[in-house]
Amino acid sequence: MLYFTSDYTEGAHPKVLEKLCAENLVSLPGYGEDAACQAAKDKIRAACGGEDLQICFLTGGTQTNLVVISSLLRRHEAVLAARTGHISVHEAGAIEYTGHKVIELEARDGKLSAATLEAWLQRFYADDSHEHMPFPGMVYISHPTEYGTLYTRAELQALSALCHRYEMPLYLDGARLGYALAARDTDVDLETLVACCDVFYIGGTKVGALCGEALVFTHRNMPPHFVTLIKQQGALLAKGRLLGMQFDALFTDGLYWEIGRHAVELAMELKAAFLEKGYPLYVDSPTNQQFVILNREQKDRLSREAVFSFWEQLDPEHTVVRFATSWATRPEDVQALIALL
Amino acid sequence: MLYFTSDYTEGAHPKVLEKLCAENLVSLPGYGEDAACQAAKDKIRAACGGEDLQICFLTGGTQTNLVVISSLLRRHEAVLAARTGHISVHEAGAIEYTGHKVIELEARDGKLSAATLEAWLQRFYADDSHEHMPFPGMVYISHPTEYGTLYTRAELQALSALCHRYEMPLYLDGARLGYALAARDTDVDLETLVACCDVFYIGGTKVGALCGEALVFTHRNMPPHFVTLIKQQGALLAKGRLLGMQFDALFTDGLYWEIGRHAVELAMELKAAFLEKGYPLYVDSPTNQQFVILNREQKDRLSREAVFSFWEQLDPEHTVVRFATSWATRPEDVQALIALL
Amino acid sequence: MLYFTSDYTEGAHPKVLEKLCAENLVSLPGYGEDAACQAAKDKIRAACGGEDLQICFLTGGTQTNLVVISSLLRRHEAVLAARTGHISVHEAGAIEYTGHKVIELEARDGKLSAATLEAWLQRFYADDSHEHMPFPGMVYISHPTEYGTLYTRAELQALSALCHRYEMPLYLDGARLGYALAARDTDVDLETLVACCDVFYIGGTKVGALCGEALVFTHRNMPPHFVTLIKQQGALLAKGRLLGMQFDALFTDGLYWEIGRHAVELAMELKAAFLEKGYPLYVDSPTNQQFVILNREQKDRLSREAVFSFWEQLDPEHTVVRFATSWATRPEDVQALIALL
Amino acid sequence: MLYFTSDYTEGAHPKVLEKLCAENLVSLPGYGEDAACQAAKDKIRAACGGEDLQICFLTGGTQTNLVVISSLLRRHEAVLAARTGHISVHEAGAIEYTGHKVIELEARDGKLSAATLEAWLQRFYADDSHEHMPFPGMVYISHPTEYGTLYTRAELQALSALCHRYEMPLYLDGARLGYALAARDTDVDLETLVACCDVFYIGGTKVGALCGEALVFTHRNMPPHFVTLIKQQGALLAKGRLLGMQFDALFTDGLYWEIGRHAVELAMELKAAFLEKGYPLYVDSPTNQQFVILNREQKDRLSREAVFSFWEQLDPEHTVVRFATSWATRPEDVQALIALL
Repeated sequence: MLYFTSDYTEGAHPKVLEKLCAENLVSLPGYGEDAACQAAKDKIRAACGGEDLQICFLTGGTQTNLVVISSLLRRHEAVLAARTGHISVHEAGAIEYTGHKVIELEARDGKLSAATLEAWLQRFYADDSHEHMPFPGMVYISHPTEYGTLYTRAELQALSALCHRYEMPLYLDGARLGYALAARDTDVDLETLVACCDVFYIGGTKVGALCGEALVFTHRNMPPHFVTLIKQQGALLAKGRLLGMQFDALFTDGLYWEIGRHAVELAMELKAAFLEKGYPLYVDSPTNQQFVILNREQKDRLSREAVFSFWEQLDPEHTVVRFATSWATRPEDVQALIALL
Repeated sequence: MLYFTSDYTEGAHPKVLEKLCAENLVSLPGYGEDAACQAAKDKIRAACGGEDLQICFLTGGTQTNLVVISSLLRRHEAVLAARTGHISVHEAGAIEYTGHKVIELEARDGKLSAATLEAWLQRFYADDSHEHMPFPGMVYISHPTEYGTLYTRAELQALSALCHRYEMPLYLDGARLGYALAARDTDVDLETLVACCDVFYIGGTKVGALCGEALVFTHRNMPPHFVTLIKQQGALLAKGRLLGMQFDALFTDGLYWEIGRHAVELAMELKAAFLEKGYPLYVDSPTNQQFVILNREQKDRLSREAVFSFWEQLDPEHTVVRFATSWATRPEDVQALIALL
Repeated sequence: MLYFTSDYTEGAHPKVLEKLCAENLVSLPGYGEDAACQAAKDKIRAACGGEDLQICFLTGGTQTNLVVISSLLRRHEAVLAARTGHISVHEAGAIEYTGHKVIELEARDGKLSAATLEAWLQRFYADDSHEHMPFPGMVYISHPTEYGTLYTRAELQALSALCHRYEMPLYLDGARLGYALAARDTDVDLETLVACCDVFYIGGTKVGALCGEALVFTHRNMPPHFVTLIKQQGALLAKGRLLGMQFDALFTDGLYWEIGRHAVELAMELKAAFLEKGYPLYVDSPTNQQFVILNREQKDRLSREAVFSFWEQLDPEHTVVRFATSWATRPEDVQALIALL
Repeated sequence: MLYFTSDYTEGAHPKVLEKLCAENLVSLPGYGEDAACQAAKDKIRAACGGEDLQICFLTGGTQTNLVVISSLLRRHEAVLAARTGHISVHEAGAIEYTGHKVIELEARDGKLSAATLEAWLQRFYADDSHEHMPFPGMVYISHPTEYGTLYTRAELQALSALCHRYEMPLYLDGARLGYALAARDTDVDLETLVACCDVFYIGGTKVGALCGEALVFTHRNMPPHFVTLIKQQGALLAKGRLLGMQFDALFTDGLYWEIGRHAVELAMELKAAFLEKGYPLYVDSPTNQQFVILNREQKDRLSREAVFSFWEQLDPEHTVVRFATSWATRPEDVQALIALL
């Protein structure tokens, strides 16, 4: 069987596992206050070009989103997100469970535009009864988006400028950030994120780690007593070393970029083949997730030899499916899939 | 000045106040366990034609909504509502503060249709990843809606049947229910609500009381220890008699309907005059709120002698405004306003 | 029957009701933005001797407690209170429902001492693992306490100084404040509260109003967008005038003090009679609530002609009961009760 | 340096790590729906002697506590726990953050007795105003307790019977359960827990795993849509396999008991040496945590060659400290520490 279901179906990149094994017997204090976490943070700071960044590690994406959003919002505030954003749709109401509304804005290919955001903000503040409405308190975007698409540097700068004008933090969900950084033709790198975002996370779970996300506050804006907040939400690992060591490995010798490039290269081969063979793309994604429209015959035929994700039933005859690549995808499997098209 | 701003700008209907004064010195136990509340509940039960109804009194509309919704939903559930619903827009995120998402569906003139709801439900359960999404746990509608419009009995029955098929309670917000019951040509009465809704409230604040809403559970489905839940949300009045006595007055000699008819009659006169003089209605409302589109000149002119509510800026030249009537609206003021058109 | 059950068993002081009736037809905007609320705030400011005080009105005590505490605490913080405090015991977990722990400290006759508080704070900050514990974020006291006892000015000053040293607001629950202000020999007046507390409330419900509490922020420390926070918790009355007019009446011509004195005088007569006839007091209360220990025979005998509250079963033979007086207590009823002792 | 700080200062037991490495490249679905989790659950069921048990894996102890407690309690309910319980003291208010009070009862050596619990329950239900108080909704105990002590089978049976009489689930926190099961002279085994508890967890993080706890519902009482609840609290690992594989290793060939015995044996050697050399124990613990009272000289001397945890300052001269053993503790280190005493 050829596996393209998702980028979290295997364990960890071998180098990540090696690191865990090599330092298994070292005795370290708990809760992220250890030398392994420290070393990983230093490497991330170096990669981001910011000595001043405040970093901590969390276990998964939904957890990171809810910890960040509920820590930064004040009680009367809501978070603004694309209608298709992960927090809007696929986190089981995690943000609302912390007491805050997700205000869903129109998006295009998963992206929220500064124009849409600004129009909404103007309408909100022009409304006489806005004191009876949840206030806009921060903006959430994902990069890559849930559709694999990417913001340009100019788009991020526009969102950032708008957020700052309205005194709201801009938060970027980088669950699959490795594939964004490794995309061809992108002008967004880690320095761009540091410049544009108030807080963002570098995804590990979907980019070669067993689990783990590195959360980065860009201007000493980590909330006071953030460890207590994390603990309060059940998100503080006793063996914080598990996260530190994995990110140390990912940020050693460019492994994080290597993983990204491997997956994106294979995804681009696949995309080229889809286009060449006349399969319509649902969205034009430059990253490791490819969304393709299959007719019934194609879907049945491919399903016999490959696994991939159902995304959406377009109409009775056509289905949107997703093919995802990762560090674990083998080039020969991509070739085998292409041969089936 | 002619007052049409809203239906809660004066105190209480004189008969409500009389009742409070007449029984002021009677000593009664607190927290709604008193004979005055009991008497009011009996009168409401009689008016609804259901001896079995469980009733309690709360202070205001947003409070009632949040108490009901957070008491009936289970932790993984969300409430479904029209995008223009009061809980979606104008309650400061009160429902989300209790931990639950408001899933906003398309509405027409403030009304949620069974077709829209059913399409959403089918999509939800067809989605492979719906276990990662907040579940539909109940449906919220308002009657009259936020635009003064009304459901027909058939529409309520269709929503009710659908809710029961999906095992969700149907909750009706009757903040202005008196004006719905008194509308010309409506086929929805209290018995209809008892038959179609699992829970609904009869609004007092906007229909002649100083404050207060009567919450009705229709089939012995009041949550266990509901008093404790109300107390926990700061919604239990020590002097519950204040609510009981007011509803006793409202449900004595048909006062609730009398108030409704008075206001609706005047609103219909106003509506007829708007139409006759060529003012476009924003929505065709059969109840005490009339939404009219004014051009700049009209708005400026009318503002000099009357007060009414700004609703929405349609375009630079046109504004939607609301004129509301109530028990306190004087027929001569309506005539004076009409003379100004 | 002689009524001593509580101070909220009758309606409102006649002058309060008169005010509501007199201004019933005045048209006023909603949500507390009206001239009646403004007038009441001005009178309270004058009574407190602080032109700068920020005031708002809420409906009841538990509601006020939960709105204030959840608005002032940050997410990692808890409120410190006496183990016998109202928020610790009798508010159905309302504070915890907003996400915050009530840390319960030892109390004596309902009072929390600066010494107890300081010892706790020192232990907390000396604990190496205090980042894994909820932080002390504010202090809650009640005056009179739940046992009718009073703080002295020196005690309030000591608590205040300690709170400020630890950068925590001091919040005083004045549900029955009128009876504290009217007590013989107290050196605590409204000016003292303004000087010592960051926020406190002046109780109306139990001091002659139908409902309502006046919340006072003493140094322009009302949280930003407090109206939105109040709305979010379902605590914003549409007809805010109901609260404003009542407090206007209570703070006109010293009515609030007159009510307090009336009730305290009668309570002192009762207390003197209990002592004279050899009934042991459970606690020595200088205010309108008297806690007395009755044996079985006494309890049975008095119950035949008077109603009062059960408080606590001391042992199989003895019961603590409470006699409460209010504006509505008649001197002749007190004499009749005394005659029965 | 000799390490006795805690049982979570090293990585994972080598056999756990081996398992992760061996199956690293197997492609598995996410979110715990995989064959590795299934295999681990089967082994745990076999060890517990209950084919019917519902099991799921979570990442850490505080997380497990908050997920379980907030999923089982209804909105008006609180959890009852020992005053020294982990949820009472060291989880940063995590339970309160989910909206529920922790009612703290007196404990002895960390243990809650059925007698204490029953007395509290009788007082609660005898209180006339208990509808204004948070209801007892479940009981939390830990085994071993926070002081390393153990319940006997009879004590668990008494608590269980009482809980069932009051219709409350009994929940047991087994963060260090491996050390309880391996204690000399205990009559509590997994079958006992299945018989007495409604839900309990088998701790992994502190018993040889990198992270992970196995939560066991004993009578098909897992809440409906529990996956959604877990997701909502950010506690659902994308790579659920990480937890499944580790528990598979721990429950293969009795590794979980082997780890327990190793640590307990060494702890008993240490305890015997403390007693022999006249060091007073703070509490008599039969498990891997030993609490000893050191005077200043002893503390300073031992600190030069060993690390251990500060627990409590008894008086200016004496300190309670904790020595913990684990799978990673070397017998020669225990001997070296004993030589220093």
